[in-house]
Amino acid sequence: MVREPDIHICEVAARDGLQNLDVFVPTEAKCALIDAIAAAGVREIDAGSFVPPKVVPQFADVDVVMAHALSHQDKRIGALVPNFKGAERAIAAGVNSIYFVISASETHNRANVRRTVDEQVEAFRAVRAAIDARPAAERPQLMGAISTSFGCSLEGDISEAAVCNLARRFAEAGADEIGLADTVGYATPTLVRQIVSAVRCEVGPDVTLRLHLHDTLGAGLANAVAGLEAGIRRFDAAVSGLGGCPFAPGARGNIVTEDLVFMLERMGLSTGIDLDRLMQTREILARHIAAKHLTGHLHEAGIPKVLRRAA
Amino acid sequence: MVREPDIHICEVAARDGLQNLDVFVPTEAKCALIDAIAAAGVREIDAGSFVPPKVVPQFADVDVVMAHALSHQDKRIGALVPNFKGAERAIAAGVNSIYFVISASETHNRANVRRTVDEQVEAFRAVRAAIDARPAAERPQLMGAISTSFGCSLEGDISEAAVCNLARRFAEAGADEIGLADTVGYATPTLVRQIVSAVRCEVGPDVTLRLHLHDTLGAGLANAVAGLEAGIRRFDAAVSGLGGCPFAPGARGNIVTEDLVFMLERMGLSTGIDLDRLMQTREILARHIAAKHLTGHLHEAGIPKVLRRAA
Repeated sequence: MVREPDIHICEVAARDGLQNLDVFVPTEAKCALIDAIAAAGVREIDAGSFVPPKVVPQFADVDVVMAHALSHQDKRIGALVPNFKGAERAIAAGVNSIYFVISASETHNRANVRRTVDEQVEAFRAVRAAIDARPAAERPQLMGAISTSFGCSLEGDISEAAVCNLARRFAEAGADEIGLADTVGYATPTLVRQIVSAVRCEVGPDVTLRLHLHDTLGAGLANAVAGLEAGIRRFDAAVSGLGGCPFAPGARGNIVTEDLVFMLERMGLSTGIDLDRLMQTREILARHIAAKHLTGHLHEAGIPKVLRRAA
Repeated sequence: MVREPDIHICEVAARDGLQNLDVFVPTEAKCALIDAIAAAGVREIDAGSFVPPKVVPQFADVDVVMAHALSHQDKRIGALVPNFKGAERAIAAGVNSIYFVISASETHNRANVRRTVDEQVEAFRAVRAAIDARPAAERPQLMGAISTSFGCSLEGDISEAAVCNLARRFAEAGADEIGLADTVGYATPTLVRQIVSAVRCEVGPDVTLRLHLHDTLGAGLANAVAGLEAGIRRFDAAVSGLGGCPFAPGARGNIVTEDLVFMLERMGLSTGIDLDRLMQTREILARHIAAKHLTGHLHEAGIPKVLRRAA
């Protein structure tokens, strides 16, 4: 029996990582990226967004990419959706996880999905009902993702109450999991501890929590460690630190999966991910994406061979 | 009365930050950098190394730079020294602090200062005696700095015992302060907590400890937060993330002062540093140092105005 890793990492480069780029990454390259991520041992892969191509042209090919991703039957393949229609498409595509996004910032929520938070919570309830109407074997997991949980580049600081209220509404509406997203990268370790603990109290011990961090201001991995200390075991991250939100000015890339994996493994926490293989995703990305978008300390410094952990 | 800041930051860009560069930064630029750092409110400035110019040509002008730095009479001006001769020069120059460096890695110690650890501890004792022979008002503070406290690119992992032994020898020989240096940037938050706690037990509660971190693998600020949690209140950092060790292959820049200050202040911890002014050091550096050496998330993303703390 394969032991579950201590830390569960969801690789979001093929979704969050691509959504803010000004170049269209060819369908084959997206599929090759997903294959490389899968080959590295990542268990959950966010493979695209079901959004109108007019809004985010990068995902015009999401149906093809998603079908390819789902050929990795041992992986949990997820999609972000901004509304009921996107969820319908995701369900029809047969995804394993749907990430339904609502922002704790009313202003960002309107910019991001063109609806009020209340309207968006209604849509989430409808998605829950649509999933529950399916045969049990065909129901994807439903995550409620709370954007701007740690600050918003439009509104500034976001209150703990706003995040907790939304978490409670997600939980009451039947979210299988709740994601706390630092959409613009304004979190600090103190704030992560505060918000994670408050949300945990609000929703109780049975709801799985996940942390989605961007590294806008340099504290990305510090925030991940703070989340770890607050009990989080699921993290989103993107290879080469890709990422950003088209509707959140100032947002930078996600925390770098390679750097996160190296740090966690050196801390004695298993991730189930083969770092050498994960590093190979860089080649695929470098063929299509400008160097300025590709970050990562480990790529710069190389994997320190003297410190390699036994496999 | 001016309140002491919660966190004491020593700016090392003018020493550690320059020692690994392949260009000579003109004396006036070094002095301008130190002036800008002082104007930003930094209370301790590492202004150079008293090393033979043949070994590190960057510090051929250290006497002139140090005299200029010492004109900031309200600051603590320090110098790194690798041996007794360097310490004699530093004492003669009238520095406020001497950082005497010994490596926990025997291999790195030989590469760095061309002596065994035992010989280096003897030299430290001689420096202590030389300082104590001065009139009380003219005695600089003496810090024992332990290089490669969290790993070595030549030896790999460094044992807790090696770091603790050296810390004890420093304390017994009369160090006013002990610095734990992640010379090559191999620390993790777990390791920082472990080593800081072990050294604290070894030397007792009365010796001030300081953390010197490099951000080789992306965990720099995470390591700083771990240090904070383990009781550390003094940190070295370099503006624009400059730094590296000429005799430690693979070492990258120090943690970025701007990013550290922003994170700490947003965590509610005062540093006494004016971030806008600190950011202005970038202009001085950019005139003389290649862009690839200048890092920092805050410089890339800008200071998020929506989050500014009241002054």
